[in-house]
Amino acid sequence: MLKYFDPRQLAHAPLQEMHNGGWADHAEKPSRAEIVLGQLGDCAAPKDVGRAPLARVHTADYLDFLENAHDRWRDAGRTGDAVGYTWPVVQRRPLKLDRIDAQLGRYSYDAGTPITADTWDAAYWGAQTALTALQPLLIGEARTSFALCRPPGHHAGADYLGGYCYLNNAAIAARAATDAGHPRVAIIDVDYHHGNGTQDIFWDAGDVFFASIHADPATDYPFYWGHADETGEGAGRDTTLNLPLPRGTRLPAYLEALDRVIGAVAKFAPGLIIVSFGADTFEEDPISHFKIAEADYPIIADRIAKLGRPTLVVMEGGYAVDALGRNVEAFLSGF
Amino acid sequence: MLKYFDPRQLAHAPLQEMHNGGWADHAEKPSRAEIVLGQLGDCAAPKDVGRAPLARVHTADYLDFLENAHDRWRDAGRTGDAVGYTWPVVQRRPLKLDRIDAQLGRYSYDAGTPITADTWDAAYWGAQTALTALQPLLIGEARTSFALCRPPGHHAGADYLGGYCYLNNAAIAARAATDAGHPRVAIIDVDYHHGNGTQDIFWDAGDVFFASIHADPATDYPFYWGHADETGEGAGRDTTLNLPLPRGTRLPAYLEALDRVIGAVAKFAPGLIIVSFGADTFEEDPISHFKIAEADYPIIADRIAKLGRPTLVVMEGGYAVDALGRNVEAFLSGF
Ligand SMILES: [Zn+2]
Ligand SMILES: [Zn+2]
Repeated sequence: MLKYFDPRQLAHAPLQEMHNGGWADHAEKPSRAEIVLGQLGDCAAPKDVGRAPLARVHTADYLDFLENAHDRWRDAGRTGDAVGYTWPVVQRRPLKLDRIDAQLGRYSYDAGTPITADTWDAAYWGAQTALTALQPLLIGEARTSFALCRPPGHHAGADYLGGYCYLNNAAIAARAATDAGHPRVAIIDVDYHHGNGTQDIFWDAGDVFFASIHADPATDYPFYWGHADETGEGAGRDTTLNLPLPRGTRLPAYLEALDRVIGAVAKFAPGLIIVSFGADTFEEDPISHFKIAEADYPIIADRIAKLGRPTLVVMEGGYAVDALGRNVEAFLSGF
Repeated sequence: MLKYFDPRQLAHAPLQEMHNGGWADHAEKPSRAEIVLGQLGDCAAPKDVGRAPLARVHTADYLDFLENAHDRWRDAGRTGDAVGYTWPVVQRRPLKLDRIDAQLGRYSYDAGTPITADTWDAAYWGAQTALTALQPLLIGEARTSFALCRPPGHHAGADYLGGYCYLNNAAIAARAATDAGHPRVAIIDVDYHHGNGTQDIFWDAGDVFFASIHADPATDYPFYWGHADETGEGAGRDTTLNLPLPRGTRLPAYLEALDRVIGAVAKFAPGLIIVSFGADTFEEDPISHFKIAEADYPIIADRIAKLGRPTLVVMEGGYAVDALGRNVEAFLSGF
């Protein structure tokens, strides 16, 4: 399996996140990537193909915001990481807003995803890592490829960050694949949490199928998205498939859902598959509640592999840091 | 001037609010009401007319949430005040959500409005205070009346809290007035901040005119609402009037805006006027940036009084606590 990583992704290290009515240590730590690297060994460096493929998924104003937010936070006399405190939940619309606090709310949906001085650079190289990892699949030089992306991406929408995510690496790769000539691409999201950003980006797109197996949003983050009745709109009608599962889900029930996903993806007949892989389905994950064991990951991966399509695996979540390297290796071994 | 207050409003005392990337002492302190009481002297107690008039403005599920949120927060093993960390900024819709954190986000739009064990009771008696203060105006026994409401109300919408506000006292009184037979009621909001909750509640209502003079939301909270192009919809088209003013505004420019409001309200010909009065327009307010002096408040009030309609003044913000009693008395003296 080809593997890609850029060490500039390690510099992003928010101190805290809002949780349980106060600040908690931030769960999305640089050591997550380091432990995976330690397990996988050398990863190839990404090329820099610039900002254009990012702008195919994210709005230009959001990218400008993300690149400059921490400077503007400091210019406003603030110290530490930039984070919002109020959000446009009613009649959200484009507005000219002159204050960094207003823009932080405008371009985010939670208080758990701070912007540090190094966030833009880390997220940028994460996106480049995904784009570079896609290349050998596009030209037929490989069948599988792994992008060790960090921070993760699947909660980030076209114009918002959230859930530890800033740039949607999987979505950027998917759009790059259709731009490269694939008429249909499928994203299979097997992170513990619903990939609401990816869903939103392709909500009305008919050429990218988004299927997600995740904890029921009635009980688990991101709460407001990922319910079973969300199936897409317009040209994207019925190209979104959400299979929420209860806390405590073990492999057999997980595989039942996965088989439904695989059936739907096979029917969509994509030329390429992107897997948003989060190891936070792991039974010992500190912020999640499924019961998937290390030995289950190759079984899950094998079913996806049997679709027989070129497949890019993009790293999303997973917060049991000590076990993360083994879990990633186990998953990749199934391809 | 008739004056009303209920001491149960004092029990609500959140410890902290999110601001500048961290926690700050909560600006909406019980001492705000105490200092006004000290200046005004005895206020009459409200009657309890129950929950029905609250439910004319707020949704039943929101009222249930607000009443039970802190118990559910404790049931979930949490200590301290209940506050959300993620918000439904995209495709907000009714959902069955089983977790208190999910509901906190569903029913709020900021991280600065915690729910304490005493919040429901305080907000409930604030609403009763506004309703009782309205009564003598409805039956022609008085021309002016003051409701010392705390916590304030004008940022609270039909189904959300925010901006230190939980129940929208002014909106509840306005709807009670139309229910009592007034075909048209006008709300004049002269708090420093836009009354986004009130606006949203009457957005498509033709029988309640909402006019607000406030700091430009491009620079000041609540950022996403109160822009000049927001004028209402449907039956409420052109019954919303927003006059944002720049930071540093002094009395002459303020009075120009007020004269526009008064002209529009006179044209609407309401049978009754409700004033959402915030003294955070005061030049020494610690979180605001207008330059209104104590001596200016009677002048502002006098222009509203000249509309010659029965007028209920409802207390909103004002955070220069030491001066708040004098500023409220100055404003009321203009009627
Ligand atoms: Zn996750
Ligand atoms: Zn205010």
